[in-house]
Amino acid sequence: MPSLNAESIRKLFEQVRTGKLSPDDAVERLRHLPFEDLGFAKVDHHRTLRAGVPEIVFGLGKTPAQVAEIFKAENKHGKNVLATRASKEQFAAVKKVVRNAKFADTARAIVLRRDRKRYGKGLITVVSAGTSDMPVAEEAVVTAELMGNEVESLYDVGVAGIHRLLAHRQSISRSRVVIVCAGMEGALPSVVGGLVGVPVIAVPTSVGYGAAFQGVAALLGMMNSCASNVSVVNIDNGFGAGYVASLINRL
Amino acid sequence: MPSLNAESIRKLFEQVRTGKLSPDDAVERLRHLPFEDLGFAKVDHHRTLRAGVPEIVFGLGKTPAQVAEIFKAENKHGKNVLATRASKEQFAAVKKVVRNAKFADTARAIVLRRDRKRYGKGLITVVSAGTSDMPVAEEAVVTAELMGNEVESLYDVGVAGIHRLLAHRQSISRSRVVIVCAGMEGALPSVVGGLVGVPVIAVPTSVGYGAAFQGVAALLGMMNSCASNVSVVNIDNGFGAGYVASLINRL
Amino acid sequence: MPSLNAESIRKLFEQVRTGKLSPDDAVERLRHLPFEDLGFAKVDHHRTLRAGVPEIVFGLGKTPAQVAEIFKAENKHGKNVLATRASKEQFAAVKKVVRNAKFADTARAIVLRRDRKRYGKGLITVVSAGTSDMPVAEEAVVTAELMGNEVESLYDVGVAGIHRLLAHRQSISRSRVVIVCAGMEGALPSVVGGLVGVPVIAVPTSVGYGAAFQGVAALLGMMNSCASNVSVVNIDNGFGAGYVASLINRL
Amino acid sequence: MPSLNAESIRKLFEQVRTGKLSPDDAVERLRHLPFEDLGFAKVDHHRTLRAGVPEIVFGLGKTPAQVAEIFKAENKHGKNVLATRASKEQFAAVKKVVRNAKFADTARAIVLRRDRKRYGKGLITVVSAGTSDMPVAEEAVVTAELMGNEVESLYDVGVAGIHRLLAHRQSISRSRVVIVCAGMEGALPSVVGGLVGVPVIAVPTSVGYGAAFQGVAALLGMMNSCASNVSVVNIDNGFGAGYVASLINRL
Amino acid sequence: MPSLNAESIRKLFEQVRTGKLSPDDAVERLRHLPFEDLGFAKVDHHRTLRAGVPEIVFGLGKTPAQVAEIFKAENKHGKNVLATRASKEQFAAVKKVVRNAKFADTARAIVLRRDRKRYGKGLITVVSAGTSDMPVAEEAVVTAELMGNEVESLYDVGVAGIHRLLAHRQSISRSRVVIVCAGMEGALPSVVGGLVGVPVIAVPTSVGYGAAFQGVAALLGMMNSCASNVSVVNIDNGFGAGYVASLINRL
Amino acid sequence: MPSLNAESIRKLFEQVRTGKLSPDDAVERLRHLPFEDLGFAKVDHHRTLRAGVPEIVFGLGKTPAQVAEIFKAENKHGKNVLATRASKEQFAAVKKVVRNAKFADTARAIVLRRDRKRYGKGLITVVSAGTSDMPVAEEAVVTAELMGNEVESLYDVGVAGIHRLLAHRQSISRSRVVIVCAGMEGALPSVVGGLVGVPVIAVPTSVGYGAAFQGVAALLGMMNSCASNVSVVNIDNGFGAGYVASLINRL
Amino acid sequence: MPSLNAESIRKLFEQVRTGKLSPDDAVERLRHLPFEDLGFAKVDHHRTLRAGVPEIVFGLGKTPAQVAEIFKAENKHGKNVLATRASKEQFAAVKKVVRNAKFADTARAIVLRRDRKRYGKGLITVVSAGTSDMPVAEEAVVTAELMGNEVESLYDVGVAGIHRLLAHRQSISRSRVVIVCAGMEGALPSVVGGLVGVPVIAVPTSVGYGAAFQGVAALLGMMNSCASNVSVVNIDNGFGAGYVASLINRL
Amino acid sequence: MPSLNAESIRKLFEQVRTGKLSPDDAVERLRHLPFEDLGFAKVDHHRTLRAGVPEIVFGLGKTPAQVAEIFKAENKHGKNVLATRASKEQFAAVKKVVRNAKFADTARAIVLRRDRKRYGKGLITVVSAGTSDMPVAEEAVVTAELMGNEVESLYDVGVAGIHRLLAHRQSISRSRVVIVCAGMEGALPSVVGGLVGVPVIAVPTSVGYGAAFQGVAALLGMMNSCASNVSVVNIDNGFGAGYVASLINRL
Repeated sequence: MPSLNAESIRKLFEQVRTGKLSPDDAVERLRHLPFEDLGFAKVDHHRTLRAGVPEIVFGLGKTPAQVAEIFKAENKHGKNVLATRASKEQFAAVKKVVRNAKFADTARAIVLRRDRKRYGKGLITVVSAGTSDMPVAEEAVVTAELMGNEVESLYDVGVAGIHRLLAHRQSISRSRVVIVCAGMEGALPSVVGGLVGVPVIAVPTSVGYGAAFQGVAALLGMMNSCASNVSVVNIDNGFGAGYVASLINRL
Repeated sequence: MPSLNAESIRKLFEQVRTGKLSPDDAVERLRHLPFEDLGFAKVDHHRTLRAGVPEIVFGLGKTPAQVAEIFKAENKHGKNVLATRASKEQFAAVKKVVRNAKFADTARAIVLRRDRKRYGKGLITVVSAGTSDMPVAEEAVVTAELMGNEVESLYDVGVAGIHRLLAHRQSISRSRVVIVCAGMEGALPSVVGGLVGVPVIAVPTSVGYGAAFQGVAALLGMMNSCASNVSVVNIDNGFGAGYVASLINRL
Repeated sequence: MPSLNAESIRKLFEQVRTGKLSPDDAVERLRHLPFEDLGFAKVDHHRTLRAGVPEIVFGLGKTPAQVAEIFKAENKHGKNVLATRASKEQFAAVKKVVRNAKFADTARAIVLRRDRKRYGKGLITVVSAGTSDMPVAEEAVVTAELMGNEVESLYDVGVAGIHRLLAHRQSISRSRVVIVCAGMEGALPSVVGGLVGVPVIAVPTSVGYGAAFQGVAALLGMMNSCASNVSVVNIDNGFGAGYVASLINRL
Repeated sequence: MPSLNAESIRKLFEQVRTGKLSPDDAVERLRHLPFEDLGFAKVDHHRTLRAGVPEIVFGLGKTPAQVAEIFKAENKHGKNVLATRASKEQFAAVKKVVRNAKFADTARAIVLRRDRKRYGKGLITVVSAGTSDMPVAEEAVVTAELMGNEVESLYDVGVAGIHRLLAHRQSISRSRVVIVCAGMEGALPSVVGGLVGVPVIAVPTSVGYGAAFQGVAALLGMMNSCASNVSVVNIDNGFGAGYVASLINRL
Repeated sequence: MPSLNAESIRKLFEQVRTGKLSPDDAVERLRHLPFEDLGFAKVDHHRTLRAGVPEIVFGLGKTPAQVAEIFKAENKHGKNVLATRASKEQFAAVKKVVRNAKFADTARAIVLRRDRKRYGKGLITVVSAGTSDMPVAEEAVVTAELMGNEVESLYDVGVAGIHRLLAHRQSISRSRVVIVCAGMEGALPSVVGGLVGVPVIAVPTSVGYGAAFQGVAALLGMMNSCASNVSVVNIDNGFGAGYVASLINRL
Repeated sequence: MPSLNAESIRKLFEQVRTGKLSPDDAVERLRHLPFEDLGFAKVDHHRTLRAGVPEIVFGLGKTPAQVAEIFKAENKHGKNVLATRASKEQFAAVKKVVRNAKFADTARAIVLRRDRKRYGKGLITVVSAGTSDMPVAEEAVVTAELMGNEVESLYDVGVAGIHRLLAHRQSISRSRVVIVCAGMEGALPSVVGGLVGVPVIAVPTSVGYGAAFQGVAALLGMMNSCASNVSVVNIDNGFGAGYVASLINRL
Repeated sequence: MPSLNAESIRKLFEQVRTGKLSPDDAVERLRHLPFEDLGFAKVDHHRTLRAGVPEIVFGLGKTPAQVAEIFKAENKHGKNVLATRASKEQFAAVKKVVRNAKFADTARAIVLRRDRKRYGKGLITVVSAGTSDMPVAEEAVVTAELMGNEVESLYDVGVAGIHRLLAHRQSISRSRVVIVCAGMEGALPSVVGGLVGVPVIAVPTSVGYGAAFQGVAALLGMMNSCASNVSVVNIDNGFGAGYVASLINRL
Repeated sequence: MPSLNAESIRKLFEQVRTGKLSPDDAVERLRHLPFEDLGFAKVDHHRTLRAGVPEIVFGLGKTPAQVAEIFKAENKHGKNVLATRASKEQFAAVKKVVRNAKFADTARAIVLRRDRKRYGKGLITVVSAGTSDMPVAEEAVVTAELMGNEVESLYDVGVAGIHRLLAHRQSISRSRVVIVCAGMEGALPSVVGGLVGVPVIAVPTSVGYGAAFQGVAALLGMMNSCASNVSVVNIDNGFGAGYVASLINRL
């Protein structure tokens, strides 16, 4: 516990030890120390302290310069960095300051991979219904890979051609967690959920038109899944699905 | 054209023929004849005139006496009569005046079968996802049967146990029209739609809780079906599905 | 059954026949064969195998090059190809590689007609309420024509000028299926449904403003149609309506 | 202007006249007089002062005793009194204290008619789509009659049997205002609106099930009417329609 | 009745008169005449036939050439023409072919005034809550003026500064109909409705942000007005309000 | 700081002082102490510690016995207790164990007043639109009174009779905070907000029918108030309004 | 593989082995066997075959006799049985036929525990915001316990008293999975998600009133959680949360 | 009372004093004076007359010239002026005519500070959940500062990192009012509300995607806050929050 914050507390004890402060006065002073001195800052960093959890940047609405700045700063700590909803312009700016950064085109993500250790114990499979769901699915793939998982993807296996999905039943069954991305009626997670005995993370996508309501139809469909092993994240939230699946896979 | 309405028009011509009226005056008078004299009343009866289309009574909100009255009146015309959303109390009242009326328990329907001719050319299959969808599915069955169709039903074949559905793939494939009833995520019509090359009539049911929103989730799911051969009727409208399917099956 | 997949199964039987494998071991191996070996892949192609069903491309979001690529590939199989929600840019690219492709302007569709056989047994009529509904109506027309149907269209016959619709009552009555496209209050399918004794496919359009909510008002209106012969497809889904109508018309 | 309130103002002037108060002081005092002294209370009574406008009681949620009390009090003023959404229990209580009160069964209204003068200049026609819409339609009828109008009603003329409506085209055309009540898809006002050249007051009703959403589908349909002469009141608000129509009819 | 359509009917009578046709055969032929021959086309034109009702063009989505074409065609009939939701580009094109056309800037309307007769019997007042509601309010003004009404407008009298509205109480009270346009909470019609004893047409506008939901909050507010003399048209439908008010004002 | 929790921390310092523990070890132990030992438990009681804030019980769904139990327990501490959404049955049970409890009929609240000190510095006025809003308004009144405020109520001053509200303008202007309860279109807070220069707490009520949507119309209206001094609490949340107003009034 | 279904396949091989059937004929026959003979029935039972997964009965809408019947049937297989949304009447009926069944009062669940093995590797903690959320939380607890997990529950730790939650931070941190149930604003999962590095399953509950919209507010809140480790199940779906958590905990 | 309006009233009194008018005639004339003569215009200015309340301009949709015009006009009165939702173009135009105007970049506000007096009695703290909420939060800050308050801001303290918020607990506790801006799940006001005993003004922001629905999820969350001291303003309405908080802080 060599941190600066701890110092102020340690100093209190030191002053008590050397008699400069009575225990009662120390307690009183303790109450008025700024919060972070009490060691709670570590909560703050629990995410970053956990091995294999990358630093996350939400790219949307940030300038290329701002994104580049963050990558530059994080680059010093040797951790993986992931920018989601990123643009090519943002990547160009990042690339200039951090040579090793890569752009995952379909996933619209900037990826900096420093830590290549395997943290996940098994396979994560990402299934998607149509080719239009691929950006969301790939965001899940990129996230899970960057968090140290073996990931397989299985695209274009929508429920209206159920045999295509069934043809891959065995490979899906090898997974410890399955992520399913689907827009329109969002029926795929129920079917996949019925085929496997592991947790399924469902991601509604905003794919579709008319009564798809930008993913609301898919979201409702997934919330009402008749398969009991399905839980759901926000519309188009491929990152969240990859993140949750990664946490599950390292248990 | 021996009807009363036509009479007034014929009379006009007669008056012109006998010179009592000039053509110009006749045209003028024609414009002021009540509408039904122009023969449009027959439109009114196109439904009842079509062979095999039963008289329909929407039971909800009617008193037992009212329903009995209607059955009694229709009983004279030799046509089939169907009361949907009917209660046992309504049936008891009907039974007293029309001996041959039957009560379809699960479908909550009172049925009077006078015309047993087969009007449908092939098989209509009614598929439902769960046992709770059965009242809606049975309403479709009863309707289609009363309209002179061969009907098969296939219940409890939800998408989370897809193999149960696939096991009946061949019998479904024999159908000329398929009706699919499903609540919760309403995914079944998409899967069935993908298995057959004939029209699928989807019926969202109000089965489910929470974000099922009394059938809205299922309705949206079905509107966004990724199978192109699916069209949709109102929530819990088993009757409508049976009716549309019957019209298709007699083509 | 000369396909490769079947080979692996036939081989199993051969091995049993020659005594290399006991029946029990064969059963066990059978269970671990990949799914497609069991002959289900043929399900996959049921759509394309059915005569007169064109290959469908959803144009929205695809690059001109991607669309051109698909047309080029499909051109070899002698089937009709239809790209919906297509742009002039996409058509230009297609035109370069497939000379016979045509652009249906109002329908926003690229059409490649190779198979001109008549598959539909009767007439499909496409009715629309206002001129703004024409892109959706024409998408239905193009789809039904490409699937080998005789199609008539009847535009600008909204319910506020009901006589215009009634004037065409007889031509509508000749149809085996009627498609009705309407935005705003979506009332037209009910009126048309009351005039004919055949199935009506209703298409809500996103035409209107304010409380039209991009087609939701029309969708709800159609779901609640007081005419029993109406079923509904997604907002602006002219293609779906044409597809369902075509399947009905070939029964 | 003999009222008490005016007195305080007149007194100010009197004090100025007699020199007890300077004009400046009077102005200052005027600013601190309670509002009603300025004669605005008469605004309050503009509704009751207008001949032929009845006193309105919203019955729902009131005890029989409360409703009876109001009728008893109003009975003294010789005006018509109307209680909407009233129950038979409320009527029984009213009947005891006001002999001449009547109960309009279908309209669920208690009516006390004291003033039988004709205030409306022409005919108000109330049209409704189905028999279930009758309570709402009758509330409109009762309201308009009590406000001194000639009223005709035309029931069960839904859009799916458009000829029934057309058959009454001429009688509708005689109206100065038309009220149209419809549930489900709420399409009737558009059709009626297209047949007449006078204002149409549309009343969505909560009749229907599933995607009718207790009148929301009908409300949206009517808001988006393609007939320009339609304006809309709240769901099931037969009273409001009768009230607006009456105000129009006395212009 | 010198129209072409009537000719075919008159010819029938003529043939009966001259004995070329028996009355019975004539009746039979009558049934197969196209609908418009029966004189119903006049229904079609009831709008245009009514004096002072302009030809209406909905500008949105039309090309300048299309709008110009319509004005050119209508210009021959001597009637007023109104294009709503029009652009300056559309006006420029119209101006070239119809010199007298004017552009109402705030109302975004192209106006051609040929008939300047006064059809309305009294005053129509258009009230709006804020300056942002002015385009909608002005559309109502332009419509009512073109339909031959005296129109006064009263802007920026929102409910949060109620005294501004009250200051104009007397001028509002002179109106035969009042149109009230308001966005955000849409409260103004209720307040105005309470001040006058004539019909109030409420127009919700899409003005506002956040929970205003593009006019839905205002629409709901107006549907639930506690003033009984309020009826409502679609969001931003200034034209409809002006149209309904004009019909009322000529009664 | 004589509390038990502080003891464990003080003991740590004592051990350091007496040399039983090194400062470093003490810091380490500190990190593993249960949270409440760090003195945060006092946060817990900040609400109850503040003078004049009553103990709150949400009555809905609790048995009479449970409510009585809570009153009995709280009765010992000499604080005020308020049960909202309470029934007469619950009150009967409370009355048996706490003699001084009172039932506020309209407000549906059980009140135990032990502390009668005045905490609010000025007047809180509670305004409501209609008599049906009174239960919500009275809940606000009871809450504010129990929290030690002078409260005035002003009922039945809806916006359709704006002069009634204006007549009380001066008494409203004396308030430090105004609470406004309204259902239906929820317009009243905007009008009141425009009349005063102090904070207005708006409470939408579920009063109304049809498009009132159980208070949603009023809620949206209030969220979009054109008066800048309005903030809003949940539908029917009279308690919350009274609570917020009380906190403001004691500033 | 001694099952009946497998028999028909084994018989095929046997016939090939004995030369009664050529391999080609066998392949052909194989294609026409009913689906379940192909060994897919095992998919059906994958749930029940997995150790520790109980048989689930959804109690709502079933008669006591139906529920008792199911328990009686399942009782023979030695597996755990869980009936959710069960009533005391249903339990009474079950109790008569299956002595060991227990009723979990708060969870409204009937529980039959036959298999007491521990399948979960670590601790599942169930956190809930208020006492009204307890039925849902307890359903999760009962489900997870029946699936062989160590479960701890932590109730009444809502976000408005955040210190109560923080006081239990360390015990929460020991969990492998955390289930969080909350109604109203549904904020608790975000706070808990920020405190732990493991998956959080969020359950919106229908607790609340007004704008809580029966759990919709909580559902939306949870879908938009700013904590990345949160996924969501349906409103009030405590069972689903317990099921998903159990699957995760046995990984 | 030297204003022009008052003159007409004073003149009445003068005429009465000099005997030119009897008191009765004066009363009668008074009734016909235009409204503003009665001194109500002062209501109009109550906002501007209150010291420290700036003139507010809603920038959105106004041209730079219009905004500049307003600033120029208001500049003469020596009051503060605030333009919200303003653009840099608008600022450039303002800058030319009013040198001292400043642009608050993040808040998107043009600020003219003429009156620097302190009107607020204590501290207003503005808390926001994420950096994307800053434009809304800064709008609140700018508003409150311009209304003469001491304002502190505390950004990026979302509920998923609750310790960051707790670390500033003491500084928040010093506030007389707290404004909390949050998008996504909108949970922060509940947590802050639980930490302080003063009014909390919650501002939902449109930050988020998918099921955030442009601020609806946050709005609902805040309406259902389990902290009783929270009231809510419209989505993104930072100005309204700053305005309400300022009114509270000067009490």
